[in-house]
Amino acid sequence: MPVNLIAVQPSDLLPVPGVRVGVAEAGIRKANRRDLTLIELAAGSRVAGVFTLNRFCAAPVQLCKQHIAGGDVRALVINTGVANAGTGEQGLADAHATCVAVGRTLGVAPEQVLPFSTGVILEALPVDRLIAGLPAAHADLREDGWFDAAHAIMTTDTLAKAVSRQVEIGGRTVTLTGISKGAGMIKPNMATMLGFLACDAAVSQALLDALTKEAADLSFNSITVDGDTSTNDSFIVVATGQAGNAEIADPLGSDFHALRDAVIDVSIRLAQAIVRDGEGATKFMTIAVEGGLDVVECRKVAYAIGQSPLVKTAFFASDPNLGRILAAIGYAGIQDLDVGGLRVWLGTAAEEVLVAELGGRAPTYREEDGVRVMKEAEITVRVDLGRGRARATVWTCDFSYDYVKINADYRS
Amino acid sequence: MPVNLIAVQPSDLLPVPGVRVGVAEAGIRKANRRDLTLIELAAGSRVAGVFTLNRFCAAPVQLCKQHIAGGDVRALVINTGVANAGTGEQGLADAHATCVAVGRTLGVAPEQVLPFSTGVILEALPVDRLIAGLPAAHADLREDGWFDAAHAIMTTDTLAKAVSRQVEIGGRTVTLTGISKGAGMIKPNMATMLGFLACDAAVSQALLDALTKEAADLSFNSITVDGDTSTNDSFIVVATGQAGNAEIADPLGSDFHALRDAVIDVSIRLAQAIVRDGEGATKFMTIAVEGGLDVVECRKVAYAIGQSPLVKTAFFASDPNLGRILAAIGYAGIQDLDVGGLRVWLGTAAEEVLVAELGGRAPTYREEDGVRVMKEAEITVRVDLGRGRARATVWTCDFSYDYVKINADYRS
Repeated sequence: MPVNLIAVQPSDLLPVPGVRVGVAEAGIRKANRRDLTLIELAAGSRVAGVFTLNRFCAAPVQLCKQHIAGGDVRALVINTGVANAGTGEQGLADAHATCVAVGRTLGVAPEQVLPFSTGVILEALPVDRLIAGLPAAHADLREDGWFDAAHAIMTTDTLAKAVSRQVEIGGRTVTLTGISKGAGMIKPNMATMLGFLACDAAVSQALLDALTKEAADLSFNSITVDGDTSTNDSFIVVATGQAGNAEIADPLGSDFHALRDAVIDVSIRLAQAIVRDGEGATKFMTIAVEGGLDVVECRKVAYAIGQSPLVKTAFFASDPNLGRILAAIGYAGIQDLDVGGLRVWLGTAAEEVLVAELGGRAPTYREEDGVRVMKEAEITVRVDLGRGRARATVWTCDFSYDYVKINADYRS
Repeated sequence: MPVNLIAVQPSDLLPVPGVRVGVAEAGIRKANRRDLTLIELAAGSRVAGVFTLNRFCAAPVQLCKQHIAGGDVRALVINTGVANAGTGEQGLADAHATCVAVGRTLGVAPEQVLPFSTGVILEALPVDRLIAGLPAAHADLREDGWFDAAHAIMTTDTLAKAVSRQVEIGGRTVTLTGISKGAGMIKPNMATMLGFLACDAAVSQALLDALTKEAADLSFNSITVDGDTSTNDSFIVVATGQAGNAEIADPLGSDFHALRDAVIDVSIRLAQAIVRDGEGATKFMTIAVEGGLDVVECRKVAYAIGQSPLVKTAFFASDPNLGRILAAIGYAGIQDLDVGGLRVWLGTAAEEVLVAELGGRAPTYREEDGVRVMKEAEITVRVDLGRGRARATVWTCDFSYDYVKINADYRS
């Protein structure tokens, strides 16, 4: 059961001028399901991306990095079913063949195509079936194709993940629409997280690159379901430049700040949707760490809490288990942390309870207050390290019977 | 159900000349259970220890570090029930009062006593009950008290953990006996791992210190149940010097090598017993990484595999899920790892199957071979990084429904 994740409606999603989206049933791994998505970008679009750091980086990710560096990207092609990871030279050849076929279909060069795959790893991509499905995806291209695409990129996701919003920039209305997928892991292998965000703003390549990196760090790189990192993770931001605003090139200007806020907002909502749909999730946890010397140490503490199986099972049990949270802070790796100086709160939208200070349980803390907070589905753990002004936030979900069941039983 | 961990028998454990052990029921947290252990060391004993790196280091650990630095330790006192962690100044006062009482009982100074506590954290130590239990523990002191002590230090452990062996050094028989406890975590908080190893060898303090550190790294610091680190973890090695061997002071001599091998062997068996008794464990996994540039990167890879919830649930399901293992290697943090150069085997005592090479599935690998290996209770994952001569081994267990159940349900 996703945690407070509502099924997206077609009317929730706004077309982005300069982007057309089509889907098809290519039978990549299973028949009768939409498993192929084609995204066509108008000439002049700018594209930026960030990719997995896993050394078993999949073949399509390797091609994406090359093609995005060349600039002038005109199409994205996404298949589910097979991740084309751990497939060696054949995998690279298959990903390249995909780009050639898409290029031929759309009348662009193979180097102008970014390929994405998600699904089982260590299996060959059935590239013939993928290519055979391209004409149908091509015929389906339309500006309002986002809703179908959000569904076509799903794997173990239980709900499609998509967000649109608009923002005024330089007197023009800029539209942003994004889709994402990922839910912990994917049968029978790793969970790939994919995020695609398109807007029609005009923005310089340098600022788009920087913004994409920042947005990824604050969204997809700030969530954790089980701490594992996929071979295929990718996050792409497209700016078609068709909104008619003056090109944004000043990182200190108000136009950039408006675009930045909107891109980060949409990215965070797309990333949070992945956690809300985390495998077996029953609670959505925000781990907000402040008062650190730098962001790195704040993230260390947030991830230590958010990835601790003991903390996550305690949240599943609605147990305000302060000891497990404090212990996770203690082993997060800040060598000179003065535990006497930190404070910890458990909170909901309605209240916040100080649970720890001065190296132990807060004198004012009553167990029934913690129990009341822990019954909610959305809980914030706020930690003040009391040694600086940096902060970082990580989102995660709890660890349930169903997590083990989903990940242990998939072949039965 | 512990994995291949056999209940220790009293006759398995050898007295160590110079060490007397006694236990008592002090009612620390529950009545009618042995929860207090006293270990008396003869004059002239040498003691070395390594302790948790958790910043929420418990009060007794803080005192231990001070007292062990002063030398001439004559007693260890261990209580279960309450960990005396996250207890601030009162906790330090309580641990100190414990040492004063033990010193008075045995006629030594408080600074010659090392206190250890394991149990719930954030609760005050009932030091009056502990002290009231000391006369009974004192009256119980005997050379063959190890069997009872192995049981008295248990918390969530399902079986006592104890090992003895003898080794010839300089024409004399040296006896080693050790006990340990720990099983993932302890109601309602963190799992404390405690290990106590005593021998009657004569060895210099400098070599004992170095050996204790090395043995801890190769044993208690090479196991993982859930990746969490306790506030109270401690490992102590005692050498009473009563075996009559010439004092070992040459780190290159054969006497030291014999002692070293024996201490490391006993330490590894004590540490492995903790994994075999891991909460909900159904399989015992050895992660052996070789061919690294240094031990640090080998340990990174071994821990990435051994701590991955996806790998651990796959082992629970007896699923030879190669993709999850490769992905864990890929995100272990070796930035310049050439995945094309590594090889991975799954093995049992009877056979070893090459499953991956050249960046993907090994051409010779057949799924039925992997399935056969994964059905065993003891499985080795061997990884050759193919870039150097360093190696490291980590032991872990699988991740089952019962792990979640034990850690989510303890208050029900």
